[in-house]
Amino acid sequence: MSQPRPAPPIEADQWLNSDSLLSLEAFRGRVLLIEVFQMLCPGCVAHGLPQAKRVLDTFPQSEVAVIGLHSVFEHHDAQNPAALAAFLHEYRINFPVAVDARDPAGFLPRTMAAYGMQGTPTLVLIDRQGRRRAQHFGQVSDLRLGAEIQTLIDDSGSRADEPDADKVVQREVRAGADGCTEEGCPAPGSHEQPS
Amino acid sequence: MSQPRPAPPIEADQWLNSDSLLSLEAFRGRVLLIEVFQMLCPGCVAHGLPQAKRVLDTFPQSEVAVIGLHSVFEHHDAQNPAALAAFLHEYRINFPVAVDARDPAGFLPRTMAAYGMQGTPTLVLIDRQGRRRAQHFGQVSDLRLGAEIQTLIDDSGSRADEPDADKVVQREVRAGADGCTEEGCPAPGSHEQPS
Amino acid sequence: MSQPRPAPPIEADQWLNSDSLLSLEAFRGRVLLIEVFQMLCPGCVAHGLPQAKRVLDTFPQSEVAVIGLHSVFEHHDAQNPAALAAFLHEYRINFPVAVDARDPAGFLPRTMAAYGMQGTPTLVLIDRQGRRRAQHFGQVSDLRLGAEIQTLIDDSGSRADEPDADKVVQREVRAGADGCTEEGCPAPGSHEQPS
Amino acid sequence: MSQPRPAPPIEADQWLNSDSLLSLEAFRGRVLLIEVFQMLCPGCVAHGLPQAKRVLDTFPQSEVAVIGLHSVFEHHDAQNPAALAAFLHEYRINFPVAVDARDPAGFLPRTMAAYGMQGTPTLVLIDRQGRRRAQHFGQVSDLRLGAEIQTLIDDSGSRADEPDADKVVQREVRAGADGCTEEGCPAPGSHEQPS
Repeated sequence: MSQPRPAPPIEADQWLNSDSLLSLEAFRGRVLLIEVFQMLCPGCVAHGLPQAKRVLDTFPQSEVAVIGLHSVFEHHDAQNPAALAAFLHEYRINFPVAVDARDPAGFLPRTMAAYGMQGTPTLVLIDRQGRRRAQHFGQVSDLRLGAEIQTLIDDSGSRADEPDADKVVQREVRAGADGCTEEGCPAPGSHEQPS
Repeated sequence: MSQPRPAPPIEADQWLNSDSLLSLEAFRGRVLLIEVFQMLCPGCVAHGLPQAKRVLDTFPQSEVAVIGLHSVFEHHDAQNPAALAAFLHEYRINFPVAVDARDPAGFLPRTMAAYGMQGTPTLVLIDRQGRRRAQHFGQVSDLRLGAEIQTLIDDSGSRADEPDADKVVQREVRAGADGCTEEGCPAPGSHEQPS
Repeated sequence: MSQPRPAPPIEADQWLNSDSLLSLEAFRGRVLLIEVFQMLCPGCVAHGLPQAKRVLDTFPQSEVAVIGLHSVFEHHDAQNPAALAAFLHEYRINFPVAVDARDPAGFLPRTMAAYGMQGTPTLVLIDRQGRRRAQHFGQVSDLRLGAEIQTLIDDSGSRADEPDADKVVQREVRAGADGCTEEGCPAPGSHEQPS
Repeated sequence: MSQPRPAPPIEADQWLNSDSLLSLEAFRGRVLLIEVFQMLCPGCVAHGLPQAKRVLDTFPQSEVAVIGLHSVFEHHDAQNPAALAAFLHEYRINFPVAVDARDPAGFLPRTMAAYGMQGTPTLVLIDRQGRRRAQHFGQVSDLRLGAEIQTLIDDSGSRADEPDADKVVQREVRAGADGCTEEGCPAPGSHEQPS
């Protein structure tokens, strides 16, 4: 049986809504939801980001933390960090948002590539021990998400049936193949599965 | 500390969408959601019943069961069992629905009174051991409901911190005081707390 | 060219939300919207009736009148006039509602048959001169409906290009063939066109 | 009685989704809807722009034209024309969009100031003769908008009761006083009425 592994680190050029550079270690002991988005992705604006806000409002902050990860793979000039700051202001998004590090050698920013994400929005759940436990591309229903978060809240981390992170990666892929749909924006060259 | 107690039995005049009379015991071992409604309650039609359907579609039936309880406290003629059958057919509601037993001596039907419900829609969660663990009058969000159901799915029933059913009863009361609102229909004389 | 003809009369067993029996003549001089529904038709409850309320709230009552027509072609016992009265009370429907006259010899109630309606919800627009000018089965968008109503408000009735009522009958038929869908409830044997 | 006057010209730095510079004269003979927005205005993205698309899909293009006007009064760097082009692409907005001309001496771009607009979204209706007939800041319902458009479609322009443009300006102002709300983004210093 495969052993659960720590989630890949967040490689960020900078953070907004935070005075300091954060890392996954800062959230150890709490369940962490990472909302991965682009500010010009319609499905992120209409569904992903409002859902992340609802999670923040529903669960105690001592149990569940929410952060954003701005993973740009197109329109880099339009979606620069200063524009992102304006976007966060207008959309009243107050949780910390990491700017995913650009990779000069690749299409995808570094964290997005390391997680094997297929586009935006992607929602990642990290457990109290820092292990990735779920990753959804496109929309996931509030009922299912509430259940998944609660499983991680209740998880003492000491069970015999340790989760295998790779099992739960990349469910719920429903976005179209070319260009953004209402559901999400697929990244170019992302359809290979992560190793 | 108060001991958790079994949920009151469902006192039904008859069941629809079921070949036989059911009881809470039939669901022992699974989490049970009871959607308490009236067919002419706008908040039940718009929110409560669609949410119950989503629960049925989201969780495995081996883990979570869904039933309806038609608890009529007004318009008894219009909301008779034959009319209810037509309603269930047109609204494509396929899960078993109990017709709450009328009490000649009281305003409220028997199960509604025994549970101390305040009106419709009311959503009740029963754990695998047959104990009432949550009761919501009015709307509850899908995120919170998903989390509450998952807690009961994961609950082995052997913990030291046994739940006290009365603690979780009657949250989320938001309906207006007179007549139905979009949120729900309050029952007359139901504002006293259950004993 | 066919001459525009008066709309068929409303044949009603009784009226609710009205002290007296009404007829189309009572609305002569105003534009009249007739919302044809059944109280157990999901598409009527979710879309048709709320839209009729919005029309009532949007246009001056001196220009546009709104009435309902309860045209039952199934579940006659469950959808009797007393049940309808309870429904209108709970759903806060205050405009006059006619109970379409049953026809012992046919499936469809009399007014529904005379208008050649295909099911519920159906929305009929009558102009200031009492002529039927539009008839929609299923959903029609608020934008289009607002435009159609305004055309009739502005119509002086003295134009040379008199409307041909039959041209505008039965657009927007989108409901399924068997049983109710979200869109509407088709009537049995209604798929022949009206003569 | 005041005479109706031509609508102020659109002063644009450039046009997107158009091969040439356009002017109001290009739409003479058709009803023209101008959707005034900012790409980072939440109410524009959620309500104003989708409504403009619905208008485009509902009315014949021979009768009604739709254009956008990007009137930026904050976050000028983030909302530059190149970023706007990316936004239009991702949101599948295909109608022509003018970039409102910046005024070095003022807060507001030139067209926005000339029309006395109070913020975004603002919806302007121009009649076939090029006269402004309605101007809404914030949300306007589809029913009312459909009716207003139809009035202009039916208007031959030869009536004695000529419209007074100023009568219909600045209805439906509902946005908050500071910062964007769900409804819209008020412009600074725009609360004085236009002369």
